[in-house]
Amino acid sequence: MIDTATPRTPARSITPGASRPLYVELADSLQSLVEQGTLRPGHRVPSVRIMSRQRDVSIATVLQAYTVLENRGYLEARPQSGYYVRPRPPSLAPEPRMAKPMAKPSYVGVNDLTAEVMDFAQNQDYVPFGSACPHHSLFPTKKLARILGSVARRDPALLVRSSLNRGYEPLAREIARRYLQAGVPLAHDELVITTGCTEALNLTLRAVTKPGDTVAIETPAYFGFLEIIQSLNLRALEIPTCSRQGICLDELRTAIEQNDVKAVMLMPSLHNPLGSVMPDEKKARLYDLLCEYDLPAIEDDIYGDTHFGDVRPKPLKAWDKDGRVLLCSSFGKTLAPGFHVGWTAPGRYLERVRRLKFTNTMGTPVVLQKALAEFLRDGGYDHHLRSLRRAYQQHLHSFAQGMQKHFPEGTRYSRPQGGNFIWVELPAKVDTLRLRKDALAHKINIAPGNLFSVKERYKNCLRMSCSVPWSDEIEAALRKLGDLIKQQL
Amino acid sequence: MIDTATPRTPARSITPGASRPLYVELADSLQSLVEQGTLRPGHRVPSVRIMSRQRDVSIATVLQAYTVLENRGYLEARPQSGYYVRPRPPSLAPEPRMAKPMAKPSYVGVNDLTAEVMDFAQNQDYVPFGSACPHHSLFPTKKLARILGSVARRDPALLVRSSLNRGYEPLAREIARRYLQAGVPLAHDELVITTGCTEALNLTLRAVTKPGDTVAIETPAYFGFLEIIQSLNLRALEIPTCSRQGICLDELRTAIEQNDVKAVMLMPSLHNPLGSVMPDEKKARLYDLLCEYDLPAIEDDIYGDTHFGDVRPKPLKAWDKDGRVLLCSSFGKTLAPGFHVGWTAPGRYLERVRRLKFTNTMGTPVVLQKALAEFLRDGGYDHHLRSLRRAYQQHLHSFAQGMQKHFPEGTRYSRPQGGNFIWVELPAKVDTLRLRKDALAHKINIAPGNLFSVKERYKNCLRMSCSVPWSDEIEAALRKLGDLIKQQL
Repeated sequence: MIDTATPRTPARSITPGASRPLYVELADSLQSLVEQGTLRPGHRVPSVRIMSRQRDVSIATVLQAYTVLENRGYLEARPQSGYYVRPRPPSLAPEPRMAKPMAKPSYVGVNDLTAEVMDFAQNQDYVPFGSACPHHSLFPTKKLARILGSVARRDPALLVRSSLNRGYEPLAREIARRYLQAGVPLAHDELVITTGCTEALNLTLRAVTKPGDTVAIETPAYFGFLEIIQSLNLRALEIPTCSRQGICLDELRTAIEQNDVKAVMLMPSLHNPLGSVMPDEKKARLYDLLCEYDLPAIEDDIYGDTHFGDVRPKPLKAWDKDGRVLLCSSFGKTLAPGFHVGWTAPGRYLERVRRLKFTNTMGTPVVLQKALAEFLRDGGYDHHLRSLRRAYQQHLHSFAQGMQKHFPEGTRYSRPQGGNFIWVELPAKVDTLRLRKDALAHKINIAPGNLFSVKERYKNCLRMSCSVPWSDEIEAALRKLGDLIKQQL
Repeated sequence: MIDTATPRTPARSITPGASRPLYVELADSLQSLVEQGTLRPGHRVPSVRIMSRQRDVSIATVLQAYTVLENRGYLEARPQSGYYVRPRPPSLAPEPRMAKPMAKPSYVGVNDLTAEVMDFAQNQDYVPFGSACPHHSLFPTKKLARILGSVARRDPALLVRSSLNRGYEPLAREIARRYLQAGVPLAHDELVITTGCTEALNLTLRAVTKPGDTVAIETPAYFGFLEIIQSLNLRALEIPTCSRQGICLDELRTAIEQNDVKAVMLMPSLHNPLGSVMPDEKKARLYDLLCEYDLPAIEDDIYGDTHFGDVRPKPLKAWDKDGRVLLCSSFGKTLAPGFHVGWTAPGRYLERVRRLKFTNTMGTPVVLQKALAEFLRDGGYDHHLRSLRRAYQQHLHSFAQGMQKHFPEGTRYSRPQGGNFIWVELPAKVDTLRLRKDALAHKINIAPGNLFSVKERYKNCLRMSCSVPWSDEIEAALRKLGDLIKQQL
């Protein structure tokens, strides 16, 4: 079972120069090309036939070597296309362990910590290791400002027009068009435009549950999920989740069988905080499981466009035949966090969600929706996304190296396949709540593990936000954080 | 009891030329000056001494005449200032009757009609008698567009900045400054900026109740209140409300004593749909009542700035000594409906509401908040408000005259003291649901009375929106509506 397996300990045991089989030698040689950056994530490696000729080894040896590298997490096979370098920080450090299952669903307690972390995230005097807000230099703000100003000047009546619960149609069409490219056939009128992804999650969750119901979520979970669940008087059931391949389906099935689960809420593509992506065949199996137990799933796809691979991960919604997947997302991580414009494609719950949108916030500013629609149509959104992904990947790379340099031995790091977080499991003795206090005294804000669970599962973990460009100040802050961690050991 | 009294039948019995006392003669003469528009709403009438000299009558006669006109609703006395022409449509038609009390609180049923009316309100092919969206020509859209464009250009980083749950401080300061002028001392950090008034109402209601609780509201009630109550699984208890002076306090007291009321949600200043304003002393008594039963009150003040008198009605919040009044409002009716920027001053529930804001929609676009702050600071907001109020008043005047011309005898009309609605009680036989169907066939959208109650109290009523400037087309639509009504008699 791929998703319940303890993460592999990578190739640390390989000692160059020792007597090794030919295929391991080839694998090691290719691995070092990846680690030196000659072969970069997303690159296609030579075909088996060509490599066999180049290195003068048999086809079987090449195949074995590629399989080893696949196992080590350096390559991935793509059907009918060959082998590709996998997007990952070039690290040999161990990966975080998967959590234990939870016996019973639990109401979420009010966690003042979340509010506190968010408060500090807004304070520019603190190093933002705890914040999810990407740095403004990553976004085409000037172009967006020009478009916004132009839209307002050309059609000032927009400023007094309420979009009510429908959303601005040309924007919905652009969003639908992009999903089509990502493998999700959607009509524009299946979408509801919302106040960011957060409202989309609220409305969809309210559409499929009533107070007291149980919702299955991943663990660790985005703390916003926990806050929403708490505020709606729902109970959370945390399902062990693999830091590479997402929620464990066997554990999910067991949880559903043993509890009265009413909905599943998850991030199958680029999970926050793990950065995991469920493989396609696993998404297909997840959808079958939902059908088997007749459950709706709320899919948060907000990081989907920040993947490092060549192909955008398909949303779970792509498998949805009967409208049970409520897809939610926004432009908050990719284009205009300050616009707070999101959407949902809530499938069979469309009318209910539309009504809740009207009741909850009535409408979403049309002038912002129109500016986004124009940017998507001819502002070079895809070009921007490519450079954004490159920037995110570079940040992750630098942060991963920095942490491995300054954090203690035995620390485990996730291998995010996109986005801008690394999930860090520190040695068991470390208490990241205490670390947080110490770090704040040095003007460093962090997001401690306790935020990511209703139980105190992750007291030695933290989510490292790699949202700012690498700099000497950032490295100094990482070093300071490392020192504070080591003081606890 | 001023607020339970049947509205007075005005001076219909006065026949010009009949033998009348001198003071009635004087009163009639001044009344006709008001009706002809020589003395306009808000004008100060000559002092008693001057009038006595002008008309060569005794001071006692002038005083009697002014008292008669006050009783007839044409004048109002202001302490230390004299007599003023009251804002009112110059109508002698009877006013709507107050509803009967409700025996038990009731869950609100899902009303597809609201969604339908809102849908048609967005369709510009229909005459918007059912819509609350003010006409764009009433707003300084060009200036606002210029400011928005300039803000975006000057500080493009705003487009990616999330305000999270705090709101943009300079805007909060402007809002607090205006409340200070209206008699409500507020610090800027007591405010939470929201996605329109609708979100403010949701968050405050969620802060003071839990599912299943009972909320006392006015009847008729803004249908948005009913939708929100329904969506939060609360129960509504409708309290009879006078079309001039707001909720009946005796009925409210009885309701609180007989039911487990957890909160009161109301519009004390310029009620939607009635246009009523609670007098100050009544607001003081309402606040005392809240204290006596230790209840919070959610105050929707969205129409407060659209009053027709010289002095803005004081929000109930002005009496609040212990933070039990949660004041909610927005710029939706006065400046920028399309921005969906609102706020709440939730008193002692501040932290809870802030947290709910984060959980519900995370933040509100800073670029819009900054544009509003700049407009409020030096865009001539007060000047704009004065012309907006004049326009609203003219619309109401024209619509009131138009309806009295084309609607059947016996129809009753509210006397709104601001805003842009008239509440219309048609003869008992008329069914406004049927009327709505007939009207839609003629491309006229109306808001039937059933929208405004959980019970079917108002089947012969409608809320007439006077949001568009008067024109021949509007009069033709009113005439058509009048014909359709008469067909039902």
